Amino acid sequence: MVQLAVFGAGRIGQIHARNAAAQPGLHVKYIVDPLEGPAREDLARATGARIVSAEQVFADPKLHGIIVASSTSSHAPLLHRAAETGKAVFCEKPVSLDFALTEKAVAAVEAAGIPCMLGFQRRYDASFRALQARVASGEAGRLEHLIMQSRDPAPPPVSYVKSSGGMFRDTAIHDMDMARFLLGEEIASVYARGSCLISPEIGAAGDVDTLMITLVTVSGRLAQVVNCRRGPMGYDQRLEAICAREVLRVENAPQGTLHVVRPEGTLAPPPMNYFLERFAQAYRDEMAAFAGLIEHGTPPLATARDGLEAQRLVEAAIRSNETGQAVAMSPDWRPE
Amino acid sequence: MVQLAVFGAGRIGQIHARNAAAQPGLHVKYIVDPLEGPAREDLARATGARIVSAEQVFADPKLHGIIVASSTSSHAPLLHRAAETGKAVFCEKPVSLDFALTEKAVAAVEAAGIPCMLGFQRRYDASFRALQARVASGEAGRLEHLIMQSRDPAPPPVSYVKSSGGMFRDTAIHDMDMARFLLGEEIASVYARGSCLISPEIGAAGDVDTLMITLVTVSGRLAQVVNCRRGPMGYDQRLEAICAREVLRVENAPQGTLHVVRPEGTLAPPPMNYFLERFAQAYRDEMAAFAGLIEHGTPPLATARDGLEAQRLVEAAIRSNETGQAVAMSPDWRPE
Amino acid sequence: MVQLAVFGAGRIGQIHARNAAAQPGLHVKYIVDPLEGPAREDLARATGARIVSAEQVFADPKLHGIIVASSTSSHAPLLHRAAETGKAVFCEKPVSLDFALTEKAVAAVEAAGIPCMLGFQRRYDASFRALQARVASGEAGRLEHLIMQSRDPAPPPVSYVKSSGGMFRDTAIHDMDMARFLLGEEIASVYARGSCLISPEIGAAGDVDTLMITLVTVSGRLAQVVNCRRGPMGYDQRLEAICAREVLRVENAPQGTLHVVRPEGTLAPPPMNYFLERFAQAYRDEMAAFAGLIEHGTPPLATARDGLEAQRLVEAAIRSNETGQAVAMSPDWRPE
Amino acid sequence: MVQLAVFGAGRIGQIHARNAAAQPGLHVKYIVDPLEGPAREDLARATGARIVSAEQVFADPKLHGIIVASSTSSHAPLLHRAAETGKAVFCEKPVSLDFALTEKAVAAVEAAGIPCMLGFQRRYDASFRALQARVASGEAGRLEHLIMQSRDPAPPPVSYVKSSGGMFRDTAIHDMDMARFLLGEEIASVYARGSCLISPEIGAAGDVDTLMITLVTVSGRLAQVVNCRRGPMGYDQRLEAICAREVLRVENAPQGTLHVVRPEGTLAPPPMNYFLERFAQAYRDEMAAFAGLIEHGTPPLATARDGLEAQRLVEAAIRSNETGQAVAMSPDWRPE
Repeated sequence: MVQLAVFGAGRIGQIHARNAAAQPGLHVKYIVDPLEGPAREDLARATGARIVSAEQVFADPKLHGIIVASSTSSHAPLLHRAAETGKAVFCEKPVSLDFALTEKAVAAVEAAGIPCMLGFQRRYDASFRALQARVASGEAGRLEHLIMQSRDPAPPPVSYVKSSGGMFRDTAIHDMDMARFLLGEEIASVYARGSCLISPEIGAAGDVDTLMITLVTVSGRLAQVVNCRRGPMGYDQRLEAICAREVLRVENAPQGTLHVVRPEGTLAPPPMNYFLERFAQAYRDEMAAFAGLIEHGTPPLATARDGLEAQRLVEAAIRSNETGQAVAMSPDWRPE
Repeated sequence: MVQLAVFGAGRIGQIHARNAAAQPGLHVKYIVDPLEGPAREDLARATGARIVSAEQVFADPKLHGIIVASSTSSHAPLLHRAAETGKAVFCEKPVSLDFALTEKAVAAVEAAGIPCMLGFQRRYDASFRALQARVASGEAGRLEHLIMQSRDPAPPPVSYVKSSGGMFRDTAIHDMDMARFLLGEEIASVYARGSCLISPEIGAAGDVDTLMITLVTVSGRLAQVVNCRRGPMGYDQRLEAICAREVLRVENAPQGTLHVVRPEGTLAPPPMNYFLERFAQAYRDEMAAFAGLIEHGTPPLATARDGLEAQRLVEAAIRSNETGQAVAMSPDWRPE
Repeated sequence: MVQLAVFGAGRIGQIHARNAAAQPGLHVKYIVDPLEGPAREDLARATGARIVSAEQVFADPKLHGIIVASSTSSHAPLLHRAAETGKAVFCEKPVSLDFALTEKAVAAVEAAGIPCMLGFQRRYDASFRALQARVASGEAGRLEHLIMQSRDPAPPPVSYVKSSGGMFRDTAIHDMDMARFLLGEEIASVYARGSCLISPEIGAAGDVDTLMITLVTVSGRLAQVVNCRRGPMGYDQRLEAICAREVLRVENAPQGTLHVVRPEGTLAPPPMNYFLERFAQAYRDEMAAFAGLIEHGTPPLATARDGLEAQRLVEAAIRSNETGQAVAMSPDWRPE
Repeated sequence: MVQLAVFGAGRIGQIHARNAAAQPGLHVKYIVDPLEGPAREDLARATGARIVSAEQVFADPKLHGIIVASSTSSHAPLLHRAAETGKAVFCEKPVSLDFALTEKAVAAVEAAGIPCMLGFQRRYDASFRALQARVASGEAGRLEHLIMQSRDPAPPPVSYVKSSGGMFRDTAIHDMDMARFLLGEEIASVYARGSCLISPEIGAAGDVDTLMITLVTVSGRLAQVVNCRRGPMGYDQRLEAICAREVLRVENAPQGTLHVVRPEGTLAPPPMNYFLERFAQAYRDEMAAFAGLIEHGTPPLATARDGLEAQRLVEAAIRSNETGQAVAMSPDWRPE
């Protein structure tokens, strides 16, 4: 039985810890969260884990791995500790809001050779995964261009906006990762434009609430991204991969199956309202993959390196939006 | 150039006459309609035809055929005249509201050997036709059961209900014909129930506004029909053919392509509002088929015999609804 | 904490027991299953229950209720035991394949006044439930007619067919219940026809694999049912309620969100493959409702009486299929 | 009766001339096409027009207007002649492939004050028009961003590519116009990237076959465009307008209504195959609008000025693609 510690008993930590506990082969031994209160107590009870300190976790030689679902600023230090102590890691994105810190943490993880996977859950969603497999197999023909749309149901509180590193780092990182996952090729240029169209509070905090990005690969293939803090229909998460023989589309998952037909038309149900519901199964599949990584060395769909590379594209998008011009990429491009 | 006369300058006569005039190879020479006024004048002008009497039509030895789109009671006499004078006929359904008169007219047409097609326009709709072809080709596997739904946008005036021979004869005849078209097999039993649920006026006139029919073929295959004088979404015209390997569905044709997405869901446009719009192309294709029948002897998709057999099933359904019991059919079953 | 015993560690028992264990307020204390082996052992371990005999269950005065998910023939006797000992019951459908035994068991349950709910899970599905609520609230206008379609992915083994009491009793009972749930009115006549079109083995065993039923209510409202042991697309479970102002449709729930667009059209994903997946949430909601019934007396959506009345309609359908004629119903109609 | 001359008896000239002839109030008096042969003969016969020279057209003082559907290089000269002789003009897009010539022709038309409309047929499509009306009315809330996708069924011959002025001028002009139509605001910046991904012949001719454009308005609203010379599903023509309260989507119009349901999913019919079929009704509505412009002075949905402004954005997109950088726009920006 694989022994794990979970860092963070917040929203996403609750999900990972409970999924890990329900996953055959995984056992949640420890919960680490500095915040006393019912959240960590309930989680410990539900998973049969003990509440301990980080020191206790890394001092336990029998512990196999850690799940990093704590606050963003703790991710990189925990990766370094895991690398030092030889623990496997499942780490939520992003590694760090500071690109240089991300680079160092990823380098440490790779140097130590510890099993490590990053929480890009969209890669584990059955539909996105099937799409990628169909592209990779050649069945759909060469992927020529990509259209990605992501909208949240409503803008987050301004406090969140500030702590999240801004909208590009918070939301576009998923699309940058998906573009890399599907295109499988180096990006040659990044152009991005963001606007504040919805929430004056977000604008006052110096951030945008709507953004568009255009990527061009080295071979000239194209990708478009739109991200928005508010979708009038709720959570809107779609992708179209235009290939030589097929277009592959991931559509939204509807909330139910009841359609109301009236003189003005047929009303189909809205999409599942947010990512925790839409990706519930993907989160379970991440824990199964983490078990497979530790037990059998099965390579994960997303590595720490994938996290770094997606972040590089996000930083380039931020630069592009600041300068109003496209950013020419190279493998070692980095924000100064 | 095939020379034709059109009987009837009403709604459906206007359509057939204009489609015939626009059809290469067909020429509308005469319009016959006892009702003086702008309808027949406009139609004559638009088609380049002359307004004449029925006698003049049948006295013209150069005329090839007639299109019967006049009042129902005139259909059978015109078929007899066409049979006597050797004219080809396109006849709107039904041949007659009186089953015995239908039988005689069909016998006369068949004895004379004149080219004759019946206006079951649904058979000429590209989607219904493709469905039938896919069943007939064996690609879909054996057709095992059939679900047909037909609803009008709103109940007709009571005056129409009375002159149409009642709802079974007016609307169910299309479904009976489609069942025969697709099943291609003798019907062994007919069960029907009708209710007046929508329009008390229709009930007061002794008719129903909602009806359900179950057909069983000699080999045990099954079909269900629902007809309703009012569909909340407008004109509702659907069919599902459940075959061994595939289900083939004809869905409604939407009015447009604009979808409105709101928090409560996505509103897709309603169906085209009525049969003239929904089957506009099918009516054109009927005239092309009539040209093919006269010029090349190409067999039509629907014959006078098909009209008779659909009517036989309708009469059995009426009997079933009166008695509350299923009617066992035989090839020569007839209402007494 | 409500203490429960679960009878039956088979497919559906596993689901109810695990859902009960995960439901706040419910505790699974006992598992009863005569079949030794890993199924009951695993279930006991996963739920923290003990494996005991029926006698031990009914002898425990602290036990609040039982979940009956054992073989059909055990349902009625367990209902009688629960009535005698004052335990609440959640009972899978049907109460008994023998109508007279069902009548007696329901009478005993009602006489004892024990809390009792029947496992018509479709009533607990969010979409069916929302549909019923919309009809009941009057928002959709009067429900005028009903179209129900249910198809299984593939025929069951012949052994199952024999033990299930035949297709009418096995599958149509759900549609009979849904018709009652939605129409909320006494049924005046039942007409049914079944055929063996798919599986000669089923026919050789004396059963049908395709059936159609027409119901007429006392006020003349109409319902059509089709059931089939094989849907070419998998599990097909749809309903249309045609009301005066709206049509309400429960469509199938798709397996995923990936659409493949090719020259021949757009391929949307097939429905979830079977009832355990399609109704997974409904089964969870049943246990929540059972908790509410025991703790707060909240009336369940389906009672033992509902089970009896659905069965009455099924028996009438069987009679109709045998005689080829419609069966006139009354509140006390019963098969002789 | 409004008297018209049609220039050009090619594909689009045939459509406009026949639609004009069928439009009450319009009469096609002349056809002008330098190419002798059956095309212009058939068109003259079908419309009842005479084949004449351009000189004869402009010398006829009783002629009200002209329809310009001849080769692109003739558009600007014909606009100048119409301006000089006071004829109303319906002109196909573009005015000229040379921006300076377009500017001069539009200035001449405006100075003369002749009624003039441009053939941006998408503005006349009922669904695009309803979308625009819903945005303009405020019902949907402020339009915040726009996603436009246009794909042709297959790449055109290289000869066409060369004569069309390149893909940006040929296809993106429609999207630039639609962006202006919907956003109703000045564009502040244009970024574009094109690639040759599909047809090496097109690449060898110096053109692209796939392009993406990002527009930013003065107030920061955003629009994305993708154009592709090949859509795997055929003609793909979609738009999403994300507004504050609603998303408005124009979807493709399906070819038919037959759906094929198989174990792998439900196959919906592909889109209408090309613009002539998809926009057949829009072309008819353009002629009705031309009649309204001449008879009642009803302003058209698209003017010569709209043609010029869309072209300005196209030229900026071409510049952006050449330089790899965004182009900052101003009302008098022009390519040097």
